Amino acid sequence: MTSAEEENVSSGSFLEDAARAARWIESYRNGVGDLPVLPRVRPGDVSGGLGTVPPEAPASLAAVLADLDEIIVPGLTHWNHPGFFAYFCSSTTDAGVLAEFLAAELNQNAMLWRTSPAGTELERRMVEWVRRFVELPDSFSGLILDTASTSSFTALLAARERAVPGVRARGLSGRGDLGPCTLYVSEEAHSSLDKAAAAAGLGLDQVRKVPVDSRLRMIPDALDEAITVDRRNGLTPVMVCATIGTTSTTSVDPVREVADICDRLGVWLHVDAAYAGPAAALAEKSQEFEGWERADSIVLNPHKWMSVPIDCSVLLYRDEEAMRQPLSLTPEYLSSEEDGRDLMDIGLSLGRRFRALKLWFQFRMEGTEAIRARLRSHIQLADRLADWIEEDGRFELAAPHPFSLVVFRALPPSGADPDDWNRRLLTAVNRRGPVFLSHTTVGGRYVIRLAVGSARGTEQAVREAWRLLGEEYDRMEKGVT
Amino acid sequence: MTSAEEENVSSGSFLEDAARAARWIESYRNGVGDLPVLPRVRPGDVSGGLGTVPPEAPASLAAVLADLDEIIVPGLTHWNHPGFFAYFCSSTTDAGVLAEFLAAELNQNAMLWRTSPAGTELERRMVEWVRRFVELPDSFSGLILDTASTSSFTALLAARERAVPGVRARGLSGRGDLGPCTLYVSEEAHSSLDKAAAAAGLGLDQVRKVPVDSRLRMIPDALDEAITVDRRNGLTPVMVCATIGTTSTTSVDPVREVADICDRLGVWLHVDAAYAGPAAALAEKSQEFEGWERADSIVLNPHKWMSVPIDCSVLLYRDEEAMRQPLSLTPEYLSSEEDGRDLMDIGLSLGRRFRALKLWFQFRMEGTEAIRARLRSHIQLADRLADWIEEDGRFELAAPHPFSLVVFRALPPSGADPDDWNRRLLTAVNRRGPVFLSHTTVGGRYVIRLAVGSARGTEQAVREAWRLLGEEYDRMEKGVT
Repeated sequence: MTSAEEENVSSGSFLEDAARAARWIESYRNGVGDLPVLPRVRPGDVSGGLGTVPPEAPASLAAVLADLDEIIVPGLTHWNHPGFFAYFCSSTTDAGVLAEFLAAELNQNAMLWRTSPAGTELERRMVEWVRRFVELPDSFSGLILDTASTSSFTALLAARERAVPGVRARGLSGRGDLGPCTLYVSEEAHSSLDKAAAAAGLGLDQVRKVPVDSRLRMIPDALDEAITVDRRNGLTPVMVCATIGTTSTTSVDPVREVADICDRLGVWLHVDAAYAGPAAALAEKSQEFEGWERADSIVLNPHKWMSVPIDCSVLLYRDEEAMRQPLSLTPEYLSSEEDGRDLMDIGLSLGRRFRALKLWFQFRMEGTEAIRARLRSHIQLADRLADWIEEDGRFELAAPHPFSLVVFRALPPSGADPDDWNRRLLTAVNRRGPVFLSHTTVGGRYVIRLAVGSARGTEQAVREAWRLLGEEYDRMEKGVT
Repeated sequence: MTSAEEENVSSGSFLEDAARAARWIESYRNGVGDLPVLPRVRPGDVSGGLGTVPPEAPASLAAVLADLDEIIVPGLTHWNHPGFFAYFCSSTTDAGVLAEFLAAELNQNAMLWRTSPAGTELERRMVEWVRRFVELPDSFSGLILDTASTSSFTALLAARERAVPGVRARGLSGRGDLGPCTLYVSEEAHSSLDKAAAAAGLGLDQVRKVPVDSRLRMIPDALDEAITVDRRNGLTPVMVCATIGTTSTTSVDPVREVADICDRLGVWLHVDAAYAGPAAALAEKSQEFEGWERADSIVLNPHKWMSVPIDCSVLLYRDEEAMRQPLSLTPEYLSSEEDGRDLMDIGLSLGRRFRALKLWFQFRMEGTEAIRARLRSHIQLADRLADWIEEDGRFELAAPHPFSLVVFRALPPSGADPDDWNRRLLTAVNRRGPVFLSHTTVGGRYVIRLAVGSARGTEQAVREAWRLLGEEYDRMEKGVT
């Protein structure tokens, strides 16, 4: 027990503790920009500060917050740091933070309509707001799940049931009537689709990685041929997933042409717009979304580019009955007079926390005009960075940048290995502290990703990232380590 | 726009808004006991109060909280009401509410060790604390998922991979070498196991519902025979799930004998202790958990009987490598120097929110002594209710009550249909407002469930439930409606 705990083992009133927690947050916010985005800890450092047995006696909030500062904060990667540019940003606003606070008190579980009429109906309404925000037709409804992985998996189960009617009962194995079941994605699609195929029993070998063109877009003819050949060989095509804004480079598959193929061949079309989806609210980006309204299902994560606290993934679909088909079943202890309105009937999880509340708070406290303005500001910052890269002889763009991610590489001095140079450069920049960028490969070559998209981000942080990239490049060139 | 919004369209500072939210929570808490547990709304009432389009302009927190009061609260089922006795209680304490507030600000995503060293290591440590609290051996490690449905599904994927090596790549369909794959549960097991079997491609037809004895416990000999016969017929037994504390009645499968069978026949043993698990921390209940330390995997939900905000499901297992086998794969954009320590390698979800924080706060701010005391008080209240039922000629117990759930039925006046009488009685009691009980069937007969288990619950609320049951019984008998 620390001395703070000895002094004060009982907590204050709720209002006192809440004020203390709020002050902690305020202080964290004010200081986070001065901390390194990536913590300077090694594996085991945080664990080592935490006892291996739970305490018998209670501690005050003050004591726990002191340990939060001492043990946890030094081991946090600061997702809400203005210099977080890795992966895709996932940041939060006051609206979301306050909503999660309230949601924990209300502790709704909207498994049944009955167990949370407001949770159930607010969730449906928030999906409708998202749908209208991104200008999808009213043939789409949906629900909120935790992550895009879960949303895409849930879509795959519906697609599997449509392709193999009755699979929910009979399963996939031990059937002479059924060949391998296949999933089609581009070579650039997210690994969550592979995992979904493995989990659903299709198998990784049955995930067809359709080749991409020079702009990293799925080649429709290759998709057509892959499906046609598989079907001719007795395989069962289950789903095509097209991506609008791939994780690696934000490339955009030609959804309209893919939709034509799916229509013609009768295959479920899922669209992964987990990151880029909100940009459909911007008129100037609507061309990137052409054809997505023809998808059977779409995933869009407000916890990414809409700055809602993780987790919040919206799964939209056109056929609610098809979504209920794979998994809906109601044991007696969950039956109610309102059967048929229950969100538990779609997807695997029974318990469903009150994720809709933070989306409601976000829409209400920010308004769509401000949300659109933020999306535009991120895109403009990314465009500006891309300009700087193009104008600088030490760097080049590695892929188009339709949204707010810029993918680029350093051009090393002659003789240096380009991949090694970029890897070392990225490590050097990330070690500096103020920014955190990530990497990927494009055409087999190591490249750097800078994803703008945080509600807490600033133009200054982007400038700082660019300055550090140049500075570290020059130090490497001079052999300074 | 409401008048409140017109008056105050911009929000206050974060500290002001946080204080306002805290006061809202305090006021909600103080008043919730006077609200009906089940809201008096009909489907569509809440939706009808919410606009169909998201607002363009921002609103103040005050305006949103006013709408929360006006539109949402009247449609909430109050999980934190002292009279919530339905399903299993899921309630919250200050510790959990404050932790969720902080977690939303920190917005950690512990998909990789690198993306949250503290989130990753705190999660591992909290699993260790839970393991020690329930006195499982150190051969168990684990992680935190959202719900028991997800945890059991994740265990099933590992079991499937062990039973059918390489299934991750080859899948289940179109294979001449593989018969149907089977899952074994008791007739009383939770529907989440059925859903897991459907999702994983085993199929509902391959879920063997092993018969139970008069105490609703799986009959080991019947399990043994079912597995043996299936194997003889070329089927592939994948997993047995034994339950400690079934959802319907909290019956306890004979885990030690089931473990003997699983050992001998080489089948993965999963134990569903989602609700009852924390009771393993009580010496006087240890006999209910005999043999569970021999399971391959165990699910235990702190968001149920440990009063941590939903969602928080701990999945414990003995073979980490077996858990990683089904789904681990790392695309280039997620590779890091610390590969191999990443929680994303187990389970389907890539994004992982900071659920460990609330478990840490709960253990720290309450201490294990107080957590055990609360569990004991719930069990004592349930025992007392069971005594009242046994002493009252109008009611009888319908099942044993090893934990904090009491399952019982009213004995109707002669001539009345027992199921109908109990159904009407439950409806009448729930309509009164102060309490919410749920139902199930035992041996095909409709029975009433009263689950004690809330951190906000009181002895007075249990007394009130019992009083209302008697009162409504008498009114029904007199023909008063």
